[in-house]
Amino acid sequence: MKTTWTRGFLATALACAVAFTTTGARAADPLPSWNAGKAKQSIVDFVAKVTKEGAPDFIPPAERIATFDNDGTLWAEQPMPFQLLFALDRVKALAPQHPEWKDKEPFASLLKGDVKGALAGGEPAIVQIVTTTHTGMTTEEFDQIVRAWLAGAKHPKTGRLYTEMVYEPMLELLAYLRANGFKTFIVSGGGIDFMRVWTEKVYGIPPEQVVGSSIKTLFEMRGGKPVLVRLPEVNFVDDKAGKPVGINSHIGRRPIAAFGNSDGDLQMLQWTTAGSGPRFCLYVHHTDAKREWAYDRKSSVGQLDKGLDEAKAKGWTVVSMKDDWKRIFAFEQ
Amino acid sequence: MKTTWTRGFLATALACAVAFTTTGARAADPLPSWNAGKAKQSIVDFVAKVTKEGAPDFIPPAERIATFDNDGTLWAEQPMPFQLLFALDRVKALAPQHPEWKDKEPFASLLKGDVKGALAGGEPAIVQIVTTTHTGMTTEEFDQIVRAWLAGAKHPKTGRLYTEMVYEPMLELLAYLRANGFKTFIVSGGGIDFMRVWTEKVYGIPPEQVVGSSIKTLFEMRGGKPVLVRLPEVNFVDDKAGKPVGINSHIGRRPIAAFGNSDGDLQMLQWTTAGSGPRFCLYVHHTDAKREWAYDRKSSVGQLDKGLDEAKAKGWTVVSMKDDWKRIFAFEQ
Repeated sequence: MKTTWTRGFLATALACAVAFTTTGARAADPLPSWNAGKAKQSIVDFVAKVTKEGAPDFIPPAERIATFDNDGTLWAEQPMPFQLLFALDRVKALAPQHPEWKDKEPFASLLKGDVKGALAGGEPAIVQIVTTTHTGMTTEEFDQIVRAWLAGAKHPKTGRLYTEMVYEPMLELLAYLRANGFKTFIVSGGGIDFMRVWTEKVYGIPPEQVVGSSIKTLFEMRGGKPVLVRLPEVNFVDDKAGKPVGINSHIGRRPIAAFGNSDGDLQMLQWTTAGSGPRFCLYVHHTDAKREWAYDRKSSVGQLDKGLDEAKAKGWTVVSMKDDWKRIFAFEQ
Repeated sequence: MKTTWTRGFLATALACAVAFTTTGARAADPLPSWNAGKAKQSIVDFVAKVTKEGAPDFIPPAERIATFDNDGTLWAEQPMPFQLLFALDRVKALAPQHPEWKDKEPFASLLKGDVKGALAGGEPAIVQIVTTTHTGMTTEEFDQIVRAWLAGAKHPKTGRLYTEMVYEPMLELLAYLRANGFKTFIVSGGGIDFMRVWTEKVYGIPPEQVVGSSIKTLFEMRGGKPVLVRLPEVNFVDDKAGKPVGINSHIGRRPIAAFGNSDGDLQMLQWTTAGSGPRFCLYVHHTDAKREWAYDRKSSVGQLDKGLDEAKAKGWTVVSMKDDWKRIFAFEQ
């Protein structure tokens, strides 16, 4: 952009004045937290290609759908997905009303501070923790519970609010895509109602553009007032092969760009790539043990193994957090 | 609007010139197919109230969510919902591949032209017709089937394409709301994937703003290419008490305005009304046997009984198609 602008300036002062007025804002680097390199260039090139009217790869704004995983892609996910930390805090908060939990797994271990022991029960244990802490109230009550937790809970390592642990380069990327007519969506394995409380404020992504896992809800009248009650039953798991299903259900058209960080995002990237016309897929690779965390093929959280191979084979962009990001969190400076 | 403009004109010629330049487009009636009256006025008043910045009832654009039922609210639904006519045509098209249907209900009756006999089997018969005609293919194949049908099938009474049987006053209303910063959604008992094929072109409502009933889909690889296969299993019924559930799932915030025509929309209107701040609910009442159809409390299609009582009790707007609409279909003139 800057080069073009400079050429314009040298060519004629009049053209320069016009260019400055109309594209001045764009001339500044829209991705200042990204180091110059292949990853950054691939993003800028793709956006330029699909937004150039009249060009063969032009895509109309209505079809510029970009989907983003959340945990590990837009915000951190270590030592475990933050929603699980929320659930653990809820278990502690609810424990006084459940004296029986002292002898009942997975709660007994949790209350002794033994998270590993509690999660040893695998998926059934997690489902039990989630349904116990995420259901039985109305949608409005749940919203308030999440809101209150986010306002006070701090990350165990950084001591920061969880909503501060979002990746600055990804916030820039979201804004950059939207400035270029893209509609940005979250497509996450996380709970749809957990995310919707804060995604608009933090990411600029409104509730109706958030896709996630969900529990069943039931409409009923309580004292003449209609409410939606959260039932202790899983409705949909928006992970792995569930992601294209969630995209089809909520968005109804195929993304032209998709962003993830783990094998849980692989099917979303495959689904995106399989469309006709220009497509863009990107993996955030956690390579920075110092500023964030370093993990991939063997991690129990956010495993990135098959995805890394497929990214290489298909020429998807792989972002090395260590090398490609000047800054990871806003609070670093 | 016009009164204000006239006052401005009388006050000062300069103010007039400014007003004409900046609000000239709005000064024209945005709802020309609506007769002057209580119904039209209630719409205009509501929009004026919630869009006036600084006023106590002002609602920011992001929260201006308006939800519309489809069958009987945006397009006609007689002699039966058009998607059911699509399913019947599909049965005929598929019959040569299913010789066994000659002796099997509900297909046997259908193939003899006895729709009533076929539907005598009630909901199980309808579910069987729908799953047989709407599943077993990929999402892309289904899209093509619907597209081809819409391009050629004609309504049995008017001889018009189904997409021509949309209500002109409602198209104006959709455009008017969007011009005032509203985000318009469809929330219909109809099939979400059936509607998404044409709602953007016909209503200006993109796929991601369509909520409807759905069948389950499965992600799988076919010859190295990812597809979504439509399974013969109902996923969600977006009708009656399902509508607030569908709204919560897809939109994630409560509408401030809702539009329907039957008891199937009642819970959506109740859910909308129960929010705090200004709310607007409207029922389209089918009162015009000459230009459209007249039906309400005792109709098997689009029954409006409880809703009519509740509209009266709660002061919701009830539109009489006969009295409030100058023109129903664009093809009338």
